[in-house]
Amino acid sequence: MIINPETLKKMAAAAARETLPRFRQFNEIDNKYTVGFDPVTEADRAAERAIRAVIKSEFPSHGIIGEEYGSENENNSHIWIIDPIDGTRAFISGLPVWGTLAGLTIDGVAQAGFMSQPFTGELYYSDGIGSYLEHGEHGKRVLATKQTRELCDATLFTTTPELFKDKKKENFEILRGQVRLTRYGVDCYAFAMLAAGFADIVVETGLQAYDIAALIPIIEKAGGIVTTFEGSRAENGGDIIAAATPELHAATLKILNQ
Amino acid sequence: MIINPETLKKMAAAAARETLPRFRQFNEIDNKYTVGFDPVTEADRAAERAIRAVIKSEFPSHGIIGEEYGSENENNSHIWIIDPIDGTRAFISGLPVWGTLAGLTIDGVAQAGFMSQPFTGELYYSDGIGSYLEHGEHGKRVLATKQTRELCDATLFTTTPELFKDKKKENFEILRGQVRLTRYGVDCYAFAMLAAGFADIVVETGLQAYDIAALIPIIEKAGGIVTTFEGSRAENGGDIIAAATPELHAATLKILNQ
Repeated sequence: MIINPETLKKMAAAAARETLPRFRQFNEIDNKYTVGFDPVTEADRAAERAIRAVIKSEFPSHGIIGEEYGSENENNSHIWIIDPIDGTRAFISGLPVWGTLAGLTIDGVAQAGFMSQPFTGELYYSDGIGSYLEHGEHGKRVLATKQTRELCDATLFTTTPELFKDKKKENFEILRGQVRLTRYGVDCYAFAMLAAGFADIVVETGLQAYDIAALIPIIEKAGGIVTTFEGSRAENGGDIIAAATPELHAATLKILNQ
Repeated sequence: MIINPETLKKMAAAAARETLPRFRQFNEIDNKYTVGFDPVTEADRAAERAIRAVIKSEFPSHGIIGEEYGSENENNSHIWIIDPIDGTRAFISGLPVWGTLAGLTIDGVAQAGFMSQPFTGELYYSDGIGSYLEHGEHGKRVLATKQTRELCDATLFTTTPELFKDKKKENFEILRGQVRLTRYGVDCYAFAMLAAGFADIVVETGLQAYDIAALIPIIEKAGGIVTTFEGSRAENGGDIIAAATPELHAATLKILNQ
């Protein structure tokens, strides 16, 4: 199924109207859980409502799964998966590396989706055919991953090394020792950079479906590989690896599973 | 000494003309050191030359210390300290959290300076009186730090936890256990977020003078405190802590020195 980019842009714009005015304002944060720190802002909730409204208007039969408001019509073959603000910690820290995510899965396979960063004005998306960045006056470009094949040439991203525990931590440290450069702290933006050819490997542990579904077609249509640590499809989340090339993917998978 | 903001903007614009066209292009990176990874791009060198040209034109008697081209006239009481691209790892990874830094020290004390992020169009600066953000059509705002006083309410930033070793690592982990939220990976942008009221504590180890000098007046004129781990002035770099309030600064210093 091909999704009209204008429809994705409509969703991104609807969400941006809710997120952007609340970015860099700190009086509405509360905690989703009593243990730990998982900020959810009114921006998060309002943006998800805005995206749901566009989906219901454009695709009334489709199902929806969202971070904030759960599932509706989830037995449909066509399901939109939404994370209104991926990178809430970046959002509340004023950093422009959070994103709004929405993606369409058909029979469980992600086909199209977008990541919008409204502060910088970037929209990374796949319409089901290609993978693109639109950036205001800077125009539109086709995304393609780097052709890095060796770990020693690769840049590695993960949100925080502390999310890896025990054997996973050991393996992550081995991986970190073999790559050229490791960077922390970027959530969904790291996957967009991989699709755009600016990063080689992204590994994350404990992702939810809504953290990754929208990003899968953007990565795949740009030539990248994204799977679980077991090598299966990533739509359901879990421990996820994305790589710019099949060679890097295989080398990374080998280390993470040893 | 009060520096005309237009002069700082002239330096920032001259540097941006060199950095921005090379941002998200990867064919000119080389390594400064044979061990480790410290990318230096042509953007870095060209931007420093551009800033030096503005300084020499506006303040011909002043000294200059820069990351790329060393010192000149360094016995002058007035010295400009330049880091053309702070956050080169962010730069080569496509992330908009690097910055161009230049600051003026008089008799060793930082008095004015700027951090420019040309991709987002933000200019954080101090003219020697106040601390400000100018952001294109979004206009100008006065910067002021948050009034967080307790570690348990604080957000902590550092570029990467792996830079802390041995006892410093132990103390950093204790600090991390006491704050509300820890974020990695943002270099100079973290200090700007602190000045702007979006982060509470930034700790970094092994900084150079050019990594911090320009940021000191931006932090101080916004109400923040920035010192070495020993509590002395930060102009010479080293292990640096910045905090939004004196209370947070004292509490952080105590943990890092225990």
